[in-house]
Amino acid sequence: ESLAAQGGKGKGVGVDIEVVSVFANRSLSEDTFIQRNFTPAEIAYCQARPDPAASLAGKWAAKEAVVKAISSFDLEHAKVWTQGAGAPLIDIEVLAGNSGAPEVHLHGEAKAAGAEVGVHDLKITISHAGEYAVAVCNAL
Amino acid sequence: ESLAAQGGKGKGVGVDIEVVSVFANRSLSEDTFIQRNFTPAEIAYCQARPDPAASLAGKWAAKEAVVKAISSFDLEHAKVWTQGAGAPLIDIEVLAGNSGAPEVHLHGEAKAAGAEVGVHDLKITISHAGEYAVAVCNAL
Amino acid sequence: ESLAAQGGKGKGVGVDIEVVSVFANRSLSEDTFIQRNFTPAEIAYCQARPDPAASLAGKWAAKEAVVKAISSFDLEHAKVWTQGAGAPLIDIEVLAGNSGAPEVHLHGEAKAAGAEVGVHDLKITISHAGEYAVAVCNAL
Repeated sequence: ESLAAQGGKGKGVGVDIEVVSVFANRSLSEDTFIQRNFTPAEIAYCQARPDPAASLAGKWAAKEAVVKAISSFDLEHAKVWTQGAGAPLIDIEVLAGNSGAPEVHLHGEAKAAGAEVGVHDLKITISHAGEYAVAVCNAL
Repeated sequence: ESLAAQGGKGKGVGVDIEVVSVFANRSLSEDTFIQRNFTPAEIAYCQARPDPAASLAGKWAAKEAVVKAISSFDLEHAKVWTQGAGAPLIDIEVLAGNSGAPEVHLHGEAKAAGAEVGVHDLKITISHAGEYAVAVCNAL
Repeated sequence: ESLAAQGGKGKGVGVDIEVVSVFANRSLSEDTFIQRNFTPAEIAYCQARPDPAASLAGKWAAKEAVVKAISSFDLEHAKVWTQGAGAPLIDIEVLAGNSGAPEVHLHGEAKAAGAEVGVHDLKITISHAGEYAVAVCNAL
């Protein structure tokens, strides 16, 4: 019997790493991928940053990390993300909060997925350097 | 008195980053390093992935992250990994679970190490992009 | 109402990634940046490692991850790091502990910041490979 099989409920963790250049040279107001996956507030935030591509890569990493953290929250639960890798991530919104740390706001299907497995809180953190952006999410 | 010295028991965290190319151009059925450190189920999983080297690097990062998470669980406990950096990691098995998230299965000495410090659950997450794979483990 | 807004107190997470070469070719005993941000014990540790630049990058990533973890601990709290990005991080000391895992020791303003938001424990983990170092901190 594995540790995971013995326990495994009630916490989740997600990590994601992205290549920043994938997010470079995109028109934030016209690019279909950007429009499908980032909210207007997220796009405005990234446009105002010194390196918009790095900020977009970081937010994308954060969204992916949230998906993984929710998926690992209850390892005995069936998959809650049924749309697969191509599902739009616009329902997972990551914005700067009062404390200086980024905050996750779930909408629509993402909110339903979190509720279904019992997640009541998400903590997210993002970093980028050189050619990479990385994010980690803890689901509580 | 530091925060770590005041508390420090009951949770652990581990991160590991690996260069994917280290895991490229290896014969999964004959390579001694692979055979010593990956279970047949792990090797079969990686062989079936679109980028086996990236998957192997990710699983290796996950195993290293588990070692670190268990080591940080009780900071007042003496080292529980006594074989050092060269110890085979085949006893830390990382496989895909029902929820879509990877799961950790401990065997042998790794299981004993986790039990000795009081770990009752491990959560693992893996990502790769470009030339790197990264994993994070929370020990609960 | 977001999940973050509903809860959000009582745990924090921080990640940081750094380019190792930024920390190369520095005189550890004379470099102003090093002297402002690393304690004598940290410098001695890094000098004795096989790759001092990678070790310095890892410790720097750890310090930044601690700042982020404390900042995300209570998302409703105002910023507790008021000196901004240029604040010296010498008050966040990261040293190897008995268990083999690194430990965080807070001093001065960093200690006050952690206490103000209610952090009672910090767990840190560090890794480096190729051109990058990464660290993750959980605040409890």
